[in-house]
Amino acid sequence: MKSNWNYPTTMWVGKNRIKDLSIACKTLNINKPLLVTDSGLAKSKIVINVLANLKEGGISTELYSDVVGNPTGTNVTEGADYYNKNDCDGVIAFGGGSGLDVGKAIAFMSGQTLPIWDFEDVDDNWTKANSDKIAPIIAVPTTAGTGSETGRASVILNEETGVKNIIFHPKFLPSIVILDPVLTLSLPAKITAATGMDALAHNLEAYCAPGYHPMADGIALEGMRLINEWLLEAVNNGSNIEARQNMLTAASMGSTAFQKGLGAIHSLSHPVNALNNIHHGLSNAIFMPYVLTFNKDAIEKKIIKICDYLELKDRSFDGFVNWVLDLRKKLDMPHRLSEVIDEKNFDIDRLSKMALADPSTGGNPKKLTENDMRTMYQHSMSGELFK
Amino acid sequence: MKSNWNYPTTMWVGKNRIKDLSIACKTLNINKPLLVTDSGLAKSKIVINVLANLKEGGISTELYSDVVGNPTGTNVTEGADYYNKNDCDGVIAFGGGSGLDVGKAIAFMSGQTLPIWDFEDVDDNWTKANSDKIAPIIAVPTTAGTGSETGRASVILNEETGVKNIIFHPKFLPSIVILDPVLTLSLPAKITAATGMDALAHNLEAYCAPGYHPMADGIALEGMRLINEWLLEAVNNGSNIEARQNMLTAASMGSTAFQKGLGAIHSLSHPVNALNNIHHGLSNAIFMPYVLTFNKDAIEKKIIKICDYLELKDRSFDGFVNWVLDLRKKLDMPHRLSEVIDEKNFDIDRLSKMALADPSTGGNPKKLTENDMRTMYQHSMSGELFK
Repeated sequence: MKSNWNYPTTMWVGKNRIKDLSIACKTLNINKPLLVTDSGLAKSKIVINVLANLKEGGISTELYSDVVGNPTGTNVTEGADYYNKNDCDGVIAFGGGSGLDVGKAIAFMSGQTLPIWDFEDVDDNWTKANSDKIAPIIAVPTTAGTGSETGRASVILNEETGVKNIIFHPKFLPSIVILDPVLTLSLPAKITAATGMDALAHNLEAYCAPGYHPMADGIALEGMRLINEWLLEAVNNGSNIEARQNMLTAASMGSTAFQKGLGAIHSLSHPVNALNNIHHGLSNAIFMPYVLTFNKDAIEKKIIKICDYLELKDRSFDGFVNWVLDLRKKLDMPHRLSEVIDEKNFDIDRLSKMALADPSTGGNPKKLTENDMRTMYQHSMSGELFK
Repeated sequence: MKSNWNYPTTMWVGKNRIKDLSIACKTLNINKPLLVTDSGLAKSKIVINVLANLKEGGISTELYSDVVGNPTGTNVTEGADYYNKNDCDGVIAFGGGSGLDVGKAIAFMSGQTLPIWDFEDVDDNWTKANSDKIAPIIAVPTTAGTGSETGRASVILNEETGVKNIIFHPKFLPSIVILDPVLTLSLPAKITAATGMDALAHNLEAYCAPGYHPMADGIALEGMRLINEWLLEAVNNGSNIEARQNMLTAASMGSTAFQKGLGAIHSLSHPVNALNNIHHGLSNAIFMPYVLTFNKDAIEKKIIKICDYLELKDRSFDGFVNWVLDLRKKLDMPHRLSEVIDEKNFDIDRLSKMALADPSTGGNPKKLTENDMRTMYQHSMSGELFK
């Protein structure tokens, strides 16, 4: 199986497509790419082989691998300096969400004079950018979750404010994406599970977001179908190439679809990712049933449509919530937020304020107040779903 | 309802979005666009208003309106000459399939030195183009069928050979698309019906085409759902804005999805469009049940999945074929090809050869021979479905 897709961008899909990376560079006239990834991956066989392959293909590659877990503005500034010092002419963003987000942001910031925070995804900030100076981007995901490879933004932590900011420009969308399941075979089950639930959250919230976007709806439904069919298999049998490919695809679809909007799952997640250093996919999985039951009135019909499409046994709202609960259990994930955050480190006032201010809040099917956020946090801590 | 979509390209969607056309020009740095359309539309209030609005917006527009029904290489050459003589710097492709296809081809050919037929969609012909010289394109469909606004090719008739050629380049994809249902309100029922069946054929063949492309599958299913819900209403009550919008959306989705592949409906259609001057949507509608029943073994499972998604009463292969037959009947469309083509003008030898050579043939779920094409033509003439 080997496919080339053309939307939302050029995507080269299939086993061992990573071997076409030097062709991708040549296609985009990149002669000296900066490969951006995290330090763990940089030492892995995967990256060592990729660098060797690029060399063989006549591409001399620079490496920036100081990317951290919740990547920071410093990562981007350092990387952009390194890019310019070494006269690079394109970026290979390589890795999980962090590597991809930083890689994209480095390609962007390498040619800008304003500071990165001026390009936060508010109003039309992005038009302040010098868009001719954005380097071409090739994205290679090594996890199936974030979908950053098909997104037009990066999430970067501002170390001064402690807030994760969304930095946006249409040209953050990579020019070529390589979806090669071989790169995800060695992912541990825990990360496969958490990132998979992130992909589910993207597709689910996009589908439930209000607004007219049938293309997003169709993509989101099919993305959820793939996850229902393949996530458990990818977790339980990590070497199953077909499962890995389908999860990579579902993740890219989730990120494509969520341009329609996200919702409270993400609003509640981002603050605990930033302040409590909880994995984003894990927190999405935890919040999912609480947000679903909170939104019930507004989404019941859509949820039943999802049940039909996924061919669930119990095609009712409760049937879907039970499917989520069951999936989480099989993935060995906690039901209560209090299982991963101590009450004493849980600053619910600050978290609720941050959650309300999160850009995802606008996409929630129900209009939300700070008190709604607080209530949803409380339920997530106690484990009690909404009735 | 007003939405901006970002895939497969920038799409401005909703009632009266046509008023943003001068903003679209400015966004793309177009100061002197060539508006390409057919002579009928050029005289209509729609185009007169559009030109007045552009003028008001400070955009001085040239007009090329000699586009004919099955547009020709001459159309493109003349239009490109006119574009260059008038120092235009962008194209507004405006109209049904013909206006859009010629507009896109003019934007492409205005900067090329090779003849247009050198860029037929075979192998990597498109790489011979000077891609820096392709003018920016804004596409404004006034019918809901072809979906050319989201396509990366134009179908142009070579008058010397009598063959409709597909001319391809990735940059044929317009930079901005405006989907404004107001522009389609005055479409006669017959054209609404035929173009709507074209959109159905695109979504249907894309979904049934073999190959791995879940994003296309999800889009195609949702496109068919919209058509099932809105086509009859758009035909019977042409002033229903919601129906018109959903049909425009479904058409764009069909064309997006069919990058995955088409099939024999289109293979059989193109030759009778070129040689017998039959409307493309009409011939697609006629061939649909014959091709479905011919392909039955290969597509039965997928067809049942469509039945489920469309919530048809009879969710079986025959149920779907009956749904198509019933829809055609309600749209007042013929069942037999012989109702629109005289036996004496029906050169089945030549047609079958052309059908087999058609680029759509590769996407058919069953591998096809010239004799298969002949058999399908024969059944379409006699009215007998395959068993």
